[in-house]
Amino acid sequence: MHPYELHRIEPGSAVDLSAIDPGRTPGLSGPESQERAAAAALHAENILAMQDLQYRLWAESQRSVLVVLQGMDTAGKDGTIRHVFGALNPQGVRVEGFKQPTPEELAHDYLWRVHRKTPGHGRIVVFNRSHYEDVLVVRVHGLVPEDVWRRRYEEINAFERLLAGSGTTILKVFLHISKGEQKQRLQARLDEPDKLWKFSMGDLAERKRWAEYQEAYTDALSRCSTEHAPWFVVPADSKWYRNWAISSIVRRALEEMDPRPPRAEIDPSKIHIE
Amino acid sequence: MHPYELHRIEPGSAVDLSAIDPGRTPGLSGPESQERAAAAALHAENILAMQDLQYRLWAESQRSVLVVLQGMDTAGKDGTIRHVFGALNPQGVRVEGFKQPTPEELAHDYLWRVHRKTPGHGRIVVFNRSHYEDVLVVRVHGLVPEDVWRRRYEEINAFERLLAGSGTTILKVFLHISKGEQKQRLQARLDEPDKLWKFSMGDLAERKRWAEYQEAYTDALSRCSTEHAPWFVVPADSKWYRNWAISSIVRRALEEMDPRPPRAEIDPSKIHIE
Repeated sequence: MHPYELHRIEPGSAVDLSAIDPGRTPGLSGPESQERAAAAALHAENILAMQDLQYRLWAESQRSVLVVLQGMDTAGKDGTIRHVFGALNPQGVRVEGFKQPTPEELAHDYLWRVHRKTPGHGRIVVFNRSHYEDVLVVRVHGLVPEDVWRRRYEEINAFERLLAGSGTTILKVFLHISKGEQKQRLQARLDEPDKLWKFSMGDLAERKRWAEYQEAYTDALSRCSTEHAPWFVVPADSKWYRNWAISSIVRRALEEMDPRPPRAEIDPSKIHIE
Repeated sequence: MHPYELHRIEPGSAVDLSAIDPGRTPGLSGPESQERAAAAALHAENILAMQDLQYRLWAESQRSVLVVLQGMDTAGKDGTIRHVFGALNPQGVRVEGFKQPTPEELAHDYLWRVHRKTPGHGRIVVFNRSHYEDVLVVRVHGLVPEDVWRRRYEEINAFERLLAGSGTTILKVFLHISKGEQKQRLQARLDEPDKLWKFSMGDLAERKRWAEYQEAYTDALSRCSTEHAPWFVVPADSKWYRNWAISSIVRRALEEMDPRPPRAEIDPSKIHIE
């Protein structure tokens, strides 16, 4: 089975994150060294295909792609951006991060700042965190009352339906890591001097709320995986598996869009360049 | 000599574009096949160095880089973006294009829309065309009176001084092609079905004003190459030369910035991850 089907959350179904092992590598087989080599080779093929598809998307300039990346700290959002989107033409791809909202952003509804960053025709935009934080960190820390965040699932579905209806293919990826893997990755930031600048004490505070986050993710994934904007839960303890799975999902979506350069309205044989 | 010095317009000097052969390849030597191989190898080295420097710029997050690309149609702005900036981490690099201004943009001064797109800390932004169009196409087509565009050179210098003063390294590159080379590249768009969508009859109209554009460029390059925001005139008839020259210039500028990750304020040995 293809990673697109393997990891897609069926719209209307309830996700059980505890039943999905973040260390598994479905879609591949054999001993680990063999799986790893296969994933690397297939990932490289995906990248080449994505480059061609991106060119056609840009030339067509009628539709767009929005990739939402979510996950706990150290889940691999930055690494995914580098390894899956790093080889695309920077003219047609943009990464948008969403951190703590500014006072101006807080003076608007929570989708305002997100809407401004959605992709225009021909473009691919990657959200490094997104409007889903408004039903994740906001819920876990009780930043708004429960009735407010509860109605957001429907608001988000409506917002994403709007985008999809105007030609945006939406792919939402949850990078699923285990609590043990996060510990190792945080420890690596402490142990390697070159990575120490990435370490934040705040990450430890969030880690203490692991179970609450998993619960909040479970609801977001279950309530907001729709036909027009599906969620994918990608096992992400193995970086090589994650890279291949995500490039496979993006490639598949682009292939289904099948973008084509517009037909020229001129007859090239009749044009003389002086 | 290094491309940084070879192509930099000395502040205060008058540029004579007609004296700069767009087909030459200074800084390299030997028969063309040898020059081409050397340029490709050195360019690949530059890209690896730029990736490391970009990481450090991002980690430091105190300064930024703005690269302005200008040139006649088909001069290679898109190709430069792909070949020189395409291998950087998309999270830290952004490409901004400036086409015909919108009504909202026209309701402001000409630097308003540009200022909004300048790089934040840790970031590299590439302008595909820029505020220089306001002393190029605007001048050639007489879109504003002469006294208005004439005072823009000083306004631009002051604007760029502001950016430089707040930690932005500015590199402005004019992709210098010959009129004959442009003819070949336009013809290729007509001859290759895959490229036909790029062809625009408007390009032929602009081509007729070649001499006026060269004059407008001469003034912009002469008046706006400053210590804080130098112009580089890069011979661009050979794409492989152009790529190497520009990656060399960007690499040199990043090396001179010498960005460094911030010193951590924590003692990693005292932290225990539960």
